[in-house]
Amino acid sequence: MENFIDVDYAKLDTDRRRRTGFSEVIFCQGKDDSFLQDLFVKLFDANGEVMGTRATEAQYEIVRQALPSAKYDKLSRIIRVCGSDQKTLIGNIAVCTAGTADIPVAEESAVTAEFFGNNVTRIYDVGVSGIHRLLGQVDKLNAANAIIAIAGMEGALASVIGGLVRVPVIAVPTSVGYGANLGGLSALLTMINSCANGISVVNIDNGYGAAYIASQINRLAVKGSAV
Amino acid sequence: MENFIDVDYAKLDTDRRRRTGFSEVIFCQGKDDSFLQDLFVKLFDANGEVMGTRATEAQYEIVRQALPSAKYDKLSRIIRVCGSDQKTLIGNIAVCTAGTADIPVAEESAVTAEFFGNNVTRIYDVGVSGIHRLLGQVDKLNAANAIIAIAGMEGALASVIGGLVRVPVIAVPTSVGYGANLGGLSALLTMINSCANGISVVNIDNGYGAAYIASQINRLAVKGSAV
Amino acid sequence: MENFIDVDYAKLDTDRRRRTGFSEVIFCQGKDDSFLQDLFVKLFDANGEVMGTRATEAQYEIVRQALPSAKYDKLSRIIRVCGSDQKTLIGNIAVCTAGTADIPVAEESAVTAEFFGNNVTRIYDVGVSGIHRLLGQVDKLNAANAIIAIAGMEGALASVIGGLVRVPVIAVPTSVGYGANLGGLSALLTMINSCANGISVVNIDNGYGAAYIASQINRLAVKGSAV
Amino acid sequence: MENFIDVDYAKLDTDRRRRTGFSEVIFCQGKDDSFLQDLFVKLFDANGEVMGTRATEAQYEIVRQALPSAKYDKLSRIIRVCGSDQKTLIGNIAVCTAGTADIPVAEESAVTAEFFGNNVTRIYDVGVSGIHRLLGQVDKLNAANAIIAIAGMEGALASVIGGLVRVPVIAVPTSVGYGANLGGLSALLTMINSCANGISVVNIDNGYGAAYIASQINRLAVKGSAV
Amino acid sequence: MENFIDVDYAKLDTDRRRRTGFSEVIFCQGKDDSFLQDLFVKLFDANGEVMGTRATEAQYEIVRQALPSAKYDKLSRIIRVCGSDQKTLIGNIAVCTAGTADIPVAEESAVTAEFFGNNVTRIYDVGVSGIHRLLGQVDKLNAANAIIAIAGMEGALASVIGGLVRVPVIAVPTSVGYGANLGGLSALLTMINSCANGISVVNIDNGYGAAYIASQINRLAVKGSAV
Amino acid sequence: MENFIDVDYAKLDTDRRRRTGFSEVIFCQGKDDSFLQDLFVKLFDANGEVMGTRATEAQYEIVRQALPSAKYDKLSRIIRVCGSDQKTLIGNIAVCTAGTADIPVAEESAVTAEFFGNNVTRIYDVGVSGIHRLLGQVDKLNAANAIIAIAGMEGALASVIGGLVRVPVIAVPTSVGYGANLGGLSALLTMINSCANGISVVNIDNGYGAAYIASQINRLAVKGSAV
Amino acid sequence: MENFIDVDYAKLDTDRRRRTGFSEVIFCQGKDDSFLQDLFVKLFDANGEVMGTRATEAQYEIVRQALPSAKYDKLSRIIRVCGSDQKTLIGNIAVCTAGTADIPVAEESAVTAEFFGNNVTRIYDVGVSGIHRLLGQVDKLNAANAIIAIAGMEGALASVIGGLVRVPVIAVPTSVGYGANLGGLSALLTMINSCANGISVVNIDNGYGAAYIASQINRLAVKGSAV
Amino acid sequence: MENFIDVDYAKLDTDRRRRTGFSEVIFCQGKDDSFLQDLFVKLFDANGEVMGTRATEAQYEIVRQALPSAKYDKLSRIIRVCGSDQKTLIGNIAVCTAGTADIPVAEESAVTAEFFGNNVTRIYDVGVSGIHRLLGQVDKLNAANAIIAIAGMEGALASVIGGLVRVPVIAVPTSVGYGANLGGLSALLTMINSCANGISVVNIDNGYGAAYIASQINRLAVKGSAV
Repeated sequence: MENFIDVDYAKLDTDRRRRTGFSEVIFCQGKDDSFLQDLFVKLFDANGEVMGTRATEAQYEIVRQALPSAKYDKLSRIIRVCGSDQKTLIGNIAVCTAGTADIPVAEESAVTAEFFGNNVTRIYDVGVSGIHRLLGQVDKLNAANAIIAIAGMEGALASVIGGLVRVPVIAVPTSVGYGANLGGLSALLTMINSCANGISVVNIDNGYGAAYIASQINRLAVKGSAV
Repeated sequence: MENFIDVDYAKLDTDRRRRTGFSEVIFCQGKDDSFLQDLFVKLFDANGEVMGTRATEAQYEIVRQALPSAKYDKLSRIIRVCGSDQKTLIGNIAVCTAGTADIPVAEESAVTAEFFGNNVTRIYDVGVSGIHRLLGQVDKLNAANAIIAIAGMEGALASVIGGLVRVPVIAVPTSVGYGANLGGLSALLTMINSCANGISVVNIDNGYGAAYIASQINRLAVKGSAV
Repeated sequence: MENFIDVDYAKLDTDRRRRTGFSEVIFCQGKDDSFLQDLFVKLFDANGEVMGTRATEAQYEIVRQALPSAKYDKLSRIIRVCGSDQKTLIGNIAVCTAGTADIPVAEESAVTAEFFGNNVTRIYDVGVSGIHRLLGQVDKLNAANAIIAIAGMEGALASVIGGLVRVPVIAVPTSVGYGANLGGLSALLTMINSCANGISVVNIDNGYGAAYIASQINRLAVKGSAV
Repeated sequence: MENFIDVDYAKLDTDRRRRTGFSEVIFCQGKDDSFLQDLFVKLFDANGEVMGTRATEAQYEIVRQALPSAKYDKLSRIIRVCGSDQKTLIGNIAVCTAGTADIPVAEESAVTAEFFGNNVTRIYDVGVSGIHRLLGQVDKLNAANAIIAIAGMEGALASVIGGLVRVPVIAVPTSVGYGANLGGLSALLTMINSCANGISVVNIDNGYGAAYIASQINRLAVKGSAV
Repeated sequence: MENFIDVDYAKLDTDRRRRTGFSEVIFCQGKDDSFLQDLFVKLFDANGEVMGTRATEAQYEIVRQALPSAKYDKLSRIIRVCGSDQKTLIGNIAVCTAGTADIPVAEESAVTAEFFGNNVTRIYDVGVSGIHRLLGQVDKLNAANAIIAIAGMEGALASVIGGLVRVPVIAVPTSVGYGANLGGLSALLTMINSCANGISVVNIDNGYGAAYIASQINRLAVKGSAV
Repeated sequence: MENFIDVDYAKLDTDRRRRTGFSEVIFCQGKDDSFLQDLFVKLFDANGEVMGTRATEAQYEIVRQALPSAKYDKLSRIIRVCGSDQKTLIGNIAVCTAGTADIPVAEESAVTAEFFGNNVTRIYDVGVSGIHRLLGQVDKLNAANAIIAIAGMEGALASVIGGLVRVPVIAVPTSVGYGANLGGLSALLTMINSCANGISVVNIDNGYGAAYIASQINRLAVKGSAV
Repeated sequence: MENFIDVDYAKLDTDRRRRTGFSEVIFCQGKDDSFLQDLFVKLFDANGEVMGTRATEAQYEIVRQALPSAKYDKLSRIIRVCGSDQKTLIGNIAVCTAGTADIPVAEESAVTAEFFGNNVTRIYDVGVSGIHRLLGQVDKLNAANAIIAIAGMEGALASVIGGLVRVPVIAVPTSVGYGANLGGLSALLTMINSCANGISVVNIDNGYGAAYIASQINRLAVKGSAV
Repeated sequence: MENFIDVDYAKLDTDRRRRTGFSEVIFCQGKDDSFLQDLFVKLFDANGEVMGTRATEAQYEIVRQALPSAKYDKLSRIIRVCGSDQKTLIGNIAVCTAGTADIPVAEESAVTAEFFGNNVTRIYDVGVSGIHRLLGQVDKLNAANAIIAIAGMEGALASVIGGLVRVPVIAVPTSVGYGANLGGLSALLTMINSCANGISVVNIDNGYGAAYIASQINRLAVKGSAV
């Protein structure tokens, strides 16, 4: 028995859920229309649900023709086709942003984390230029099993949170800013060089990737280790 | 009551263990000798144990004068002063390297993780140029609650592991290599841009930082979440 | 007798086929319309066939007015005007991609290699995040005289292939990705720093260039050396 | 009358005090020994006092042969030759560091500011990984007319201070750190991209430059503007 | 009593004026239309005046619907809604540019400084390629309490001014130029490495940020320090 | 039967010769002394010959204690331990350098290629500043099955050779140069962006890697393809 | 008498011709329409002729309304308004390109040089991938007093020319290329690191700047030095 | 007759004087001792004089053994072996530096220019932080046929000189500075992006290269063009 589906130009990794515990998610950006629809259908058939990130509204229209129950969220740019049963959400993941311009990335994280079956607490616009806004949220932060810290410009939010909490902080640099922000590289460097402990970093604007890791951690915290 | 000790030129964060669950570790590199000894003593007094990373043998000799039970590990360059009781180690963390030149960074991870109370599985020299060496270790990888993937040069190890496992992979780029490796930046970029899920990245050669995060995750997996 | 044609603003290298074994190919991107048509005609007259890369459909329409037998391939963006005789294809070149988004670059390689008279085996979407998809293709890889490995994002595919085969791997970094992929520089650095042997690298998205080198190698393998 | 002294290989800017209000300071690093002594003597003769930064102890010994009242401070690496009268210090400048490794740069700032006639408040080791240490110092910060914020690694200190105070913050990135700190460029980018207001930046490790600007501001605050 | 307003997706820092002496200014670029209007209204209600930078004309139209007294300045791209009373302007800030292409950034500085209650002297097109144009303005420069030096391309203006004056120079690199100007990074590096004293730097094109700092300094010079 | 030897801290890839046709070569730089000797012995036992690159004379002395027939070449820094039989060299590889300072890298290429069983033609100091020196060698270049072009500084040699020959050119940028050569990155970029066809690039100073690829190509040319 | 004209927002350097021997040229890119017309008129009145670079056709239409004798050259994007007398052209400047895509930059050089009163020899499409095309032009090169070498991609042309001639070579990197050409930085680095003598470099695509320097040199060669 | 000498490992370009008007100069840095002596002797025999740059004193001792009339200049690090006849120096070249730390590079320029037969005017320590020092030298600058402007740190000197003179300015960035000077790249970028006309740039610290170009220009100015 094959552990992938060999379609024209792609090899769908249908074994992924067994190996990793999460089924394949579609990165829609730049995908050809005809191919995209086919991909959603095949993965929905295989897994009973399917999600795509970085989708345009036009792509959503194409997917909806084949899968009428598909839903689109403008802010996060996510297409979801859920199964018939309501998911039971577990544990808690906190998603924080430094500013309001970081919210689209944050929603990519939050919606992904919910799709993967996690409770999510949103804590937005708590950047370090008004540190009192963050300090008032420490109890909420400490109630999570994993924290996603999203910031552009100088990206200092992750370091401050890292010093305040017990659980892992996944830092997401964003391309928000201008001039010497280098499209988000400045925030990435800030987070990689953090003087605080417990901070690891994903790619610029990669809200999805942070949610994946936070989901792994939250699952371990709630369901326990295999060890 | 103060939550830090104000010594000459430093403010020791004695509240850290309460906030984060781990007491302060000393980054020895570049620290002045007289100051270093004082720091080890004060933190040992406060916490009943103390550890320092990036230490030279000369620094160890100075620490040992004040704390005769101090131990030094040449490979990881870590000084440890342990308490009288044997720690009970919990769960499991896997530490992997691509090559043999990455082992000093890996030992910084492994020794730190053990100091923080975790069981550690070492899997060294399983880089992608001979992929069969890694594929034989998948069961060991899947028995861990967190995996630390350490690689220099092109740093491809983390992506391959990420595609094989269920648990978070903390990727550590190393400065191993030459020419266009840019002192480890090339491996860092590889890991940040990984096409695999579940991978987050810490600073170049930061074995300690990866162990800290893996310890947070392993603790959540074994002891469960507060949620 | 001159060994180049001196037209307005250009010196066509009509000696190239004698020196290198391949006639000049037109890089269409940014070429002026009137000039482009003239170039296709002059090189077709000189060589009995002609090919252009990075062509738009509008450029194709202009070329077709002068050379009605011209053909255009949308995916690879290549214009071909072939001679009357069917070419006999020799040997074998494998063209591999990490993901589906790398396919346009791969088709530039594959179509070029076919134009230059080589058999081509396409192996797409075998990136390292699901390594089992690649491992199933090792026999196909070993049946080629040269392998083109095309990948964006972290570009780890080339290293893994390099460790599995006997023949040269020409690595093509692509601009596929986002954030810290630096428009393909990250994948380029990965490939240049590869820990595996037998890997050399061409410019980002340079599918044509990789096919040229693979054709040189395949020709040597099939026709033997002059030495 | 000339407004500079033309010595061998140099043109001493003796007009500088008139133009700028501060006499020329000697950047000792890399200066030839014979030349250095001459420079100290000439500027002491012209101004009645003289200071040099980035000096080695060996350079100090040479200066002291000609100017026996010269003093050397090991931590800041500054040579001072003061006039006979005690200076009256004015106003207040706060000098803050994120960590203890930043203190040599901080002392270059503090000693320079004192030489230029300012009161200085030192606030060291208040980095963002333990934010409570900084929050306890807000009153001290608000008592200064200018604040120098010195940090390496991710350099987040300046942003947090900027959000807490009324007066200008001069941010000094330091080369403290390792890996992707890029010799201090990472901290520089953090500070340049700060989301907080009131922050401007000088070169990496440039404690002297920050003190010069803080002195200009403190002088304006105490003595008032000419406008 | 709360010190911020918790609206949908944002936490307005209404305590900022108390802490810093300046109320919050809106960075309009990329803000959602509905949200933008709400933000202007809430901050106008809280502070009796409000200003937004980097605004498009379309954004202005939206703001004007809610706040009819809003004014828009095309060159600086600033929206202002002033209170009923005429402000008394204090002291003096000089705003200089190297070329005419730097003027939009300069006007962002000048208009901001006027909004914050400062007198402003504009000195435009005095770049170093015709140094006599700058030398004729030295008296004007020396009449200011703070100088903003704005330049793109090679950014040498700040260094020359720094050598001529007594007061702090805030240098603003601009993205004006082409080729190896790296979007303004070249000018930023020039200014950070200045051989002249008294120069600190803000982000590329950050006219607003420079005006904020100059306003802090001018306020200290006119109103005196609290010390 | 295992396809690797699991020693302390390493997994020797004894299957490599079967997979790739070349046995494992030791990169000596940074290897621990005791470990190095063991590695040479184990690989000599497995393969009947062994080679190490980037070796110091001190490392050679250690290897010679265990393997008295070991030879050391100072210029290329290669240690070789050959088998008892004389190898028959096949085909031809040309190794070219731009200048005399590139010769150590060239000798790493040449000695490696000879160890792998190839005839080698050395063509040194034919850089583009005196192009007539290169033009006189075209016949020698055309007699090779693969050409290694080694150059530092601006690295233009590869492009000129690429335009003159029929066979693949493997370009090796070197760190020779100063200032803006960026440790060899400048030459690497030149070679990657070559306007000539048939050029692929390996890491800076990677003479070994280029020889490996040239050996693969020469073997295909002489022994023919498996296809 | 003033040596500049102080118009709204600009200080026209009417002294420039006296100081430098060339009157001010207008860089049109990004200039406001109303301002641009005024600038052309004022400089035409002052100097009897005027030229602008990087102009669009729309800008040309605006200039022509005020100065009907204005001429526009599409390829070089230059607007010229000449005086009534025919200029006598002196000496000789050679303008060379590597490829046809570099011609717009070359024409900016050539047309500028002609406007400044120099004879120009155009030698286009002589890049190093077909070196015989260049070698046939050596006599033409040696007949010039200054040579402008224009190349994108790897930019090797300047080095080869530098080794063949007696006169200065001004190298102009162009943004022609893709991928790792970094918008022309790669060619710039090639030229700056040239192993050949007699090569100096101007900004990417700066055809005008190269023509200015070549004109200075040609003038010295023909008219002799003042020394 | 051959136009180069083929020695071991090098091809001495004895045709260079005929082609370029200057005989080959030896770049001593990194050259092997035995080889270096041979090179000096062979070039002295061919040309009647010889010069080497970047030489150590130890290298000088070796050269002097074979050529007792060799002279060494410590500051410029140049070895010269002159012919018996006194050269007649022609025209004039000005060599300027921003600071005293740039003088070693300046002396490499000045001594080279004198060796090539030019009169040299040295103008040192006239950087822009005290612009009056430079303005006093304008007559000297205008008396030269070419000007070499040497500066590290922010490198603004070249732009200011460019605006003041009629003749070409060859700009030499130096590695003088620290922090964000990036080993001289910052000054290089400043000079490449200069807003002034007439400035072209050579590699960091390349005093020799600048002198070569200035000598070409001075020769043309004094001896006239061939045209």
